[in-house]
Amino acid sequence: MGHRAAIVGAGHTRFGVLEPGPRALLRSAVSAAFASVDHGAAPRDVGEAFLASLGFGGWQIGNASAVLGEEAGAVGVPTTRVENACASGGFALRAAVRAIEAGARELVLVAGVEKMTDVASARRRYWLGVSGDTEWERLAGLTFAGVYGLIASHYLFEHRLGPEALAEVAVKNHENGTLNPNAHFQKRVSREEVLRSARVADPLGLFDCCPVSDGAAALLLAPADSARRYTDTPVYVDGLGAASDHLAVQERPELTRFEATRRAADEAFRGAGWDRSEVSFLEVHDCFTIAELLALEDLGFAGPGEAAALTLSGATRRTGRLPTNPDGGLKAKGHPIGATGVSQLYEVFLQLRRAAGARQVPQATRALAHNVGGAGATATVSLLSGG
Amino acid sequence: MGHRAAIVGAGHTRFGVLEPGPRALLRSAVSAAFASVDHGAAPRDVGEAFLASLGFGGWQIGNASAVLGEEAGAVGVPTTRVENACASGGFALRAAVRAIEAGARELVLVAGVEKMTDVASARRRYWLGVSGDTEWERLAGLTFAGVYGLIASHYLFEHRLGPEALAEVAVKNHENGTLNPNAHFQKRVSREEVLRSARVADPLGLFDCCPVSDGAAALLLAPADSARRYTDTPVYVDGLGAASDHLAVQERPELTRFEATRRAADEAFRGAGWDRSEVSFLEVHDCFTIAELLALEDLGFAGPGEAAALTLSGATRRTGRLPTNPDGGLKAKGHPIGATGVSQLYEVFLQLRRAAGARQVPQATRALAHNVGGAGATATVSLLSGG
Repeated sequence: MGHRAAIVGAGHTRFGVLEPGPRALLRSAVSAAFASVDHGAAPRDVGEAFLASLGFGGWQIGNASAVLGEEAGAVGVPTTRVENACASGGFALRAAVRAIEAGARELVLVAGVEKMTDVASARRRYWLGVSGDTEWERLAGLTFAGVYGLIASHYLFEHRLGPEALAEVAVKNHENGTLNPNAHFQKRVSREEVLRSARVADPLGLFDCCPVSDGAAALLLAPADSARRYTDTPVYVDGLGAASDHLAVQERPELTRFEATRRAADEAFRGAGWDRSEVSFLEVHDCFTIAELLALEDLGFAGPGEAAALTLSGATRRTGRLPTNPDGGLKAKGHPIGATGVSQLYEVFLQLRRAAGARQVPQATRALAHNVGGAGATATVSLLSGG
Repeated sequence: MGHRAAIVGAGHTRFGVLEPGPRALLRSAVSAAFASVDHGAAPRDVGEAFLASLGFGGWQIGNASAVLGEEAGAVGVPTTRVENACASGGFALRAAVRAIEAGARELVLVAGVEKMTDVASARRRYWLGVSGDTEWERLAGLTFAGVYGLIASHYLFEHRLGPEALAEVAVKNHENGTLNPNAHFQKRVSREEVLRSARVADPLGLFDCCPVSDGAAALLLAPADSARRYTDTPVYVDGLGAASDHLAVQERPELTRFEATRRAADEAFRGAGWDRSEVSFLEVHDCFTIAELLALEDLGFAGPGEAAALTLSGATRRTGRLPTNPDGGLKAKGHPIGATGVSQLYEVFLQLRRAAGARQVPQATRALAHNVGGAGATATVSLLSGG
């Protein structure tokens, strides 16, 4: 199958507890994206823009996409906010590729942003919960850590496993985070520290959970056939998949598989005409350590329960045979909700151009990015290749 | 130019102060859309769905598109929430048409919903304001009625006009609303009643403002070349335009023109290859009476200040030469934010199929629908034709 579109530029702010507000974060990420375009690009080259943002804390709940137009210096172009909770970025990429497939000849901008740490702690819990099912989960007091704790508990029971593989996900992603100057956490943790950390929702401890982060990321896309006007090393979008599931986990037949991820992966691989063995590395949605194990299985890289052994074998380390989350993942890099899916693609852009510096994955030629909304109610899978 | 896609089914709930919650409203509108498909359609025919909703009052702030999948009986298909404030519906139509242009062979569902009246009065003011500029308008206390009041005041001053044309918009749209069984208000008002009504933001009185309404609307779209599998009378999408502007009105060079509407209209007419004289009737975004006058001018049907005389001449009445808002408009039909743009297209669907009953516009063959986000920061224009 042919390339569907190409990423020709990408920008990223630091993730963490940051001073700047959402407008300034967007501006930084978008400026960096323009600056990254090898042969040059300017706001006037942008024909359309998509904003991925939950609007955490209500910085601009309605019509926020117009802010992206302003901060990109592209007031006037069509701007659309795409919101599918933590999967907003993946769905925004899909909307951008379709804009190109529908005939857009100019650059299409995708940016994701969240400013989460401004919100007081009690309200933060509210905003963290708004993407879960309202009637059966959030109003009953079930937080996301609670949902993923139930899933993790069942996973370990079902497969007769201890918590070591969960801890290993944290150890690995923190290790990768030390090599990413944009990561929220840039320090190692030991397996013992993870296992002994304060319980959040048993079996998940503090180090099994991604942090609450501020940050933004941005991409510039071009039609595949004109990508080389902008750079000699475009990164091509070859396959896209997306799907949904019941919002409340209680409505699903199984706790330990995300149908939306499975459907999205199948669609993406079918569309790209790739085999899973051709993938050089993965960016997966590890909002909790258990989520990385589920992702490896639902994406088709391990059978049910087998992601644990795969992880413990070291295969998913940056230098293993299936590097997973070389940027530190949501776990260590941070998870500013709307920015996350875009940030994964930023990492793919760097890696496939051999520009990831100290964390470069050897032989990175084909990448998979996997973005999940809530506890699996929406998901996207994107397949990208180097030039 | 060829047809870009076709609407083959549409459904609508009553608009007003309603008992059912957002899930039930979505279910009603989507069921009605399926039932309206002449040769039959079922949830299994749907390949993708788009939800237009502001999430007023926070019924499901994040990941709400998964709810649409559930209520449509189409769990599993990709679902995306498109949010551009009051223009969410118009942008959702655009996303759906692009899904088809990108190769979707199944039906694409677009649904809009808002449940506004559940929210207590003080919080309602907050939620009504969240689509305005946060820093310079909302936090300074400037409501949407306030913004449109400033615009109306300047319009009347600039063109040396009295408030009669504003009142006439309300009189006409209320008159049309009496013929629409789904309208929030189905009663006539006289010009004197409008002019004497309680001041909200001078020169806008109570009857110059659209109501706060609950409601939902849904559309089923098919590729143009397979539309006749579903109905002998599809309604074709021939042109689409969209644009953005500065979020805060103070950043714009002029108060009394919406650049986003102008750009969107030009794009839509260019794309469709239509002349403005070919349009049989208009659905325009009359959140306040002044907005209908601006729309007539920005869409290119009247020069600056001339929409007042056009309206007073009776031309925009249902039986005039340029019928505008035959369904009662936002003014009388109601304005459940996410549902509004979809509802306009529902009316277009009925009118172009000669199925609008007592409010049928004579010789309706080509229609324009115009949807505005906030005070003009985002806008869409859609051009549709009968079979």
